[in-house]
Amino acid sequence: MNILVINSGSSSLKYQLFSMPDERPLCTGLIEKIGKEDSLIRHKTIREEDVQVTEKTLAVKDFGEGMKHVLALLTDSGLIKNTDDLEVIGHRVVHGGEYFSTAVVIDPDVKQKILGLSTLAPLHNPVNYKCIEFAEKIFPNAKQIAVFDTAFHQTMPEFAFRYAIPEKYYSEMHIRAYGFHGTSHKYVSERAMEWLGKPDVKMISIHLGNGCSITAVSGGKSIDTSMGFGPLSGLVMGTRSGDIDPSVILHLQRKEGKTADEMDKLLNNESGLLGLAGSNDMRDVMKMLESGNYDAELAIDMYAYRIKKYIGSYTAVLNGLDAIVFTAGVGENDALMREKICRGMEYFGIQLDAESNRIKSDQIREISEKSAGVKVLVIPTNEELEIARQSFELLREDPPCEQVILY
Amino acid sequence: MNILVINSGSSSLKYQLFSMPDERPLCTGLIEKIGKEDSLIRHKTIREEDVQVTEKTLAVKDFGEGMKHVLALLTDSGLIKNTDDLEVIGHRVVHGGEYFSTAVVIDPDVKQKILGLSTLAPLHNPVNYKCIEFAEKIFPNAKQIAVFDTAFHQTMPEFAFRYAIPEKYYSEMHIRAYGFHGTSHKYVSERAMEWLGKPDVKMISIHLGNGCSITAVSGGKSIDTSMGFGPLSGLVMGTRSGDIDPSVILHLQRKEGKTADEMDKLLNNESGLLGLAGSNDMRDVMKMLESGNYDAELAIDMYAYRIKKYIGSYTAVLNGLDAIVFTAGVGENDALMREKICRGMEYFGIQLDAESNRIKSDQIREISEKSAGVKVLVIPTNEELEIARQSFELLREDPPCEQVILY
Repeated sequence: MNILVINSGSSSLKYQLFSMPDERPLCTGLIEKIGKEDSLIRHKTIREEDVQVTEKTLAVKDFGEGMKHVLALLTDSGLIKNTDDLEVIGHRVVHGGEYFSTAVVIDPDVKQKILGLSTLAPLHNPVNYKCIEFAEKIFPNAKQIAVFDTAFHQTMPEFAFRYAIPEKYYSEMHIRAYGFHGTSHKYVSERAMEWLGKPDVKMISIHLGNGCSITAVSGGKSIDTSMGFGPLSGLVMGTRSGDIDPSVILHLQRKEGKTADEMDKLLNNESGLLGLAGSNDMRDVMKMLESGNYDAELAIDMYAYRIKKYIGSYTAVLNGLDAIVFTAGVGENDALMREKICRGMEYFGIQLDAESNRIKSDQIREISEKSAGVKVLVIPTNEELEIARQSFELLREDPPCEQVILY
Repeated sequence: MNILVINSGSSSLKYQLFSMPDERPLCTGLIEKIGKEDSLIRHKTIREEDVQVTEKTLAVKDFGEGMKHVLALLTDSGLIKNTDDLEVIGHRVVHGGEYFSTAVVIDPDVKQKILGLSTLAPLHNPVNYKCIEFAEKIFPNAKQIAVFDTAFHQTMPEFAFRYAIPEKYYSEMHIRAYGFHGTSHKYVSERAMEWLGKPDVKMISIHLGNGCSITAVSGGKSIDTSMGFGPLSGLVMGTRSGDIDPSVILHLQRKEGKTADEMDKLLNNESGLLGLAGSNDMRDVMKMLESGNYDAELAIDMYAYRIKKYIGSYTAVLNGLDAIVFTAGVGENDALMREKICRGMEYFGIQLDAESNRIKSDQIREISEKSAGVKVLVIPTNEELEIARQSFELLREDPPCEQVILY
């Protein structure tokens, strides 16, 4: 069975076709700058050793047109013959609210819920919804599955996901911590459990991409995570501030008359590494550090320090720690950052092996000292594969009856 | 030498007279509801075993009038003969910005700085400033000393006190974490070092009053603390939310059109225990818990959970932990809360002795299991005594020369 995975961001569309259950990628692609005159399409067809790449720059005016390009690329490269030739499409959906703690087959009610949750994820859920609608039109006979970024964190206990504000904001306005990057945290924590050979691991999963989050995982379940109501809180990120005293927001609004939208832009798009050191790309900031730049040094120290604090915090929550997992761009590739995070954490049993930490690889690897109490792993994340897996699992378990209620 | 300590809040004035260096309190008093028709004055004169209490309800229209009442009570009770009879007055000042890391003798420049910092502490610094002015008028020959709530935390490293927002907000608008309750954290951490008999203790000081904060102390110095730019972030408090995802604020402003002032009121005055359980008094919330109230249970769980997370976080920052200190109303008196905080923290070497924890006392006491790696102490705080001490120490060190620059 082939499963197409659709991962739509606010102005981009990633897709990947997997042969399941052997998990072989058949093609992968990305359309960037959707809505602009110079959208970029990059498509890769993979046939064993033979990889063929197609690149185009042209105007892709919306996600509907984007989906048509995907169809054309799949048929042109001979991966599918026609639109009936695709049985399953797995969609990444950012916000599942409190409705969805697992993947679900999409029906009209699920679609309404995804659209309704746009108020909590205004940049993402409307786009995810549109891609589902277009996919239904283009591939009318395929099963459409939704896999939510928030789902993995639905196991957090209430005392962890609630904020200390009046109850009505939770019951009436759904304000609570949801957490994000769930598909990635679930994927790497499951890989870690396999690697370590036991399921009841107390583990901290650290996803460091342009967005960053950290999750406490016990026995395979998320029990706390650093992103909250939105993907802004927690760690220092590429352009996002992470945790900040709320009174800073109120002070800036009073002193500078900033509106909510302006504060949003400041905290989401102009802060983090970019605000501190002038670039949202850790590779640039690391280069600036080498040339002795003070702002870069401070930004890197703050980035590492915040993670250190969360590792401590989640070790308390877990009352123990067996493993730490680094994943995503910075987590997988930046040995110096991993070293800065783990330095001075011997009290927790964390100690890196300098040599293993320096090895570059796209494979799972252990980078802690053999004798250290805590295993430190680097695990390349793969959200698309996780979406394909969850879609496959869901359909395998799905009884062959159209009327069954799945959620 | 007698030292009068003035601790002015937004609408109250606490004072205490100490004989130094023997630290004997000669009187203590409180004027509440200043500016109202039914202000309350409560004054206690202490002469060895003999305590005399005076109580009055009358209109005290402002802090100047309040200070005159203090003078009258001191002379009426025979503690001083006239205004020349008082050599030193120690003032609690909330915000010292980055100017003051210790107590200072007040001169015109110090006064200007205190007033200038009103933008960072609008409810407190103007009142503190007024009390200094009145004290100068009433006691023209006394030395006036300022002791700052923020001073103890000035040892935090930059990567701990900065926020991940553009640098100009720090350099131009002084936005950074300052931390508060410094006088209390300093006092109890010094008592703890004396008790433990060593100065290089890695310690976490937990101040749980109506306001709550937690500080990581290494070798007697604050290295991180939970309150930040204002006294709002960090722990769940009586009426304050503590940490909250900043996107919640932006969401509520967009959805409900809340202004900065309305959000301030919500997060500072209507949240915390009050917002969750309907009372800002932990004693009430604990009673509700006994009667099986769900909201009270959740509020208590969240309160304890937040502290647990900070203990973990600061243990990471300290890379070790020798002692935890509980202080202030809840910290000193609520055995059940202390138990909830310390439960499930064995991995950190924290283990309470149930019996010692239950003992009620106003003395320093150790409540951890004898064999536990981390000493858990209860230490009654005494901010007024700490202010008197710092004032005394400062003058003792102060060379007898009027022109010396002290800061």
